[in-house]
Amino acid sequence: MAIVMQQGALTEFLAREFAQVANDFSVTRVEEDLLEVRLNVADRHLRPGGTVSGPSMFALADVAVYLAILSRLGPVALAVTTNCSIDFMRKPAAGRALVAQARLLKLGRVLAVGDVLIYSEGTAAPVARAGLTYSIPPETKGGA
Amino acid sequence: MAIVMQQGALTEFLAREFAQVANDFSVTRVEEDLLEVRLNVADRHLRPGGTVSGPSMFALADVAVYLAILSRLGPVALAVTTNCSIDFMRKPAAGRALVAQARLLKLGRVLAVGDVLIYSEGTAAPVARAGLTYSIPPETKGGA
Amino acid sequence: MAIVMQQGALTEFLAREFAQVANDFSVTRVEEDLLEVRLNVADRHLRPGGTVSGPSMFALADVAVYLAILSRLGPVALAVTTNCSIDFMRKPAAGRALVAQARLLKLGRVLAVGDVLIYSEGTAAPVARAGLTYSIPPETKGGA
Amino acid sequence: MAIVMQQGALTEFLAREFAQVANDFSVTRVEEDLLEVRLNVADRHLRPGGTVSGPSMFALADVAVYLAILSRLGPVALAVTTNCSIDFMRKPAAGRALVAQARLLKLGRVLAVGDVLIYSEGTAAPVARAGLTYSIPPETKGGA
Repeated sequence: MAIVMQQGALTEFLAREFAQVANDFSVTRVEEDLLEVRLNVADRHLRPGGTVSGPSMFALADVAVYLAILSRLGPVALAVTTNCSIDFMRKPAAGRALVAQARLLKLGRVLAVGDVLIYSEGTAAPVARAGLTYSIPPETKGGA
Repeated sequence: MAIVMQQGALTEFLAREFAQVANDFSVTRVEEDLLEVRLNVADRHLRPGGTVSGPSMFALADVAVYLAILSRLGPVALAVTTNCSIDFMRKPAAGRALVAQARLLKLGRVLAVGDVLIYSEGTAAPVARAGLTYSIPPETKGGA
Repeated sequence: MAIVMQQGALTEFLAREFAQVANDFSVTRVEEDLLEVRLNVADRHLRPGGTVSGPSMFALADVAVYLAILSRLGPVALAVTTNCSIDFMRKPAAGRALVAQARLLKLGRVLAVGDVLIYSEGTAAPVARAGLTYSIPPETKGGA
Repeated sequence: MAIVMQQGALTEFLAREFAQVANDFSVTRVEEDLLEVRLNVADRHLRPGGTVSGPSMFALADVAVYLAILSRLGPVALAVTTNCSIDFMRKPAAGRALVAQARLLKLGRVLAVGDVLIYSEGTAAPVARAGLTYSIPPETKGGA
């Protein structure tokens, strides 16, 4: 399925629709097989010890797959997260951004499924992985 | 396994160790079979439309099971979330607190497992459910 | 939502539609809040050491929530499992049946969500827990 | 981490330790980044309509990651599945084998995490994906 929203359009969409969190995230790659989002780590994302919190990693995984869906369906998409299974595997490196690489595995009539690997920027071993499912409401089919 | 930290001790622990988020949560019940935590919903937890965000519900589920473990192991526990599978089932009611009811299903030597139901306060149908696993580092066994 | 298929009707449905596995399972309770299914453990369910295999526990969890959905929607339901997250928490007791207790948490227009605890018969601590999601095809709405 | 058991050794291990199911599976590739296992579909794996059953796909995902761990730890490994989250995304093609491609994402001191994509042989879109966690008992460290 073709990409109908590129990096710039996704960034604008985030800023317009999710103003509260838009500055947390940068869309860094939008490709057929991969959408990459960066978490610009700030104090509010940290736990004692300087580690990025679980909820911040969850938010990053969620936004990455959400944007991957949006990149195919266009700006009217109102996909709703219905399930996320996330594994926290390693402690993120202190003082580094996190990068999520999301792949869309299914974009069906009512459900979309994607998975994500999250890395500390510049590090080879992933800190987390997640699989997410989204429900796509009927009115968004056929896109904008 | 006996409860070694009650409501007051857990609240103090949150305030001391997780100052950034401690005001988000109130520990409302600590029982053998159930630990209840309330998310005091504020603007920063909301998405457009006034719905509590997924990451905020994830954070609530996570803290509820974490505190359930702590209530048995005592204040030295440094359990680390290793997995969470969460289902978002209904849109939370606007303008209401969320309440998480957590049960500990296993508290083993190296792993603890709990599950959680999240409700809009005063509502019978759960908005989310989650199962979480925590790794318990060796040094915390036998706890303070 | 009212129960429209009771224990006998569910058992007949299993025998008719899932003849290959119907003898593995006995529906033992059908209540508003709880559907209970027993795995009649045979050699084909065991791993070396006499432990019930993971896939057999998965099958038990799956059939229990599936039947809970069926008990509300009637015999034409063709719900399809879309996600299962299962935690294996303890080794099942050798030489005992397994019992799954399933609750339906959501029965929506397109998705149903249930969770399950699995016990070795006569034992208090659960051996596994699972959360499952089913997609309900449009043609089954309004039931038989 | 180096591969210490290749295709032949893994196949022998399955035949010796899991005789009941060994014929169901063929280890087809063992590489640094990928272990591939084929489910030799037989009647016992099918549901009405000729579709491979959910429990058979679960079993395939489980064995694939298990063998990926074994390929690094050697034949004494007694890893135990503690969690699996599996998404069933498409109906498997009738009359075809299923192929699971597993990657090991973490092989830690106490936990290993892998993920799997399952395909109908010769088909590009995956029918299922799964993430699995295994607990590694202390006695197996340093392996045979």
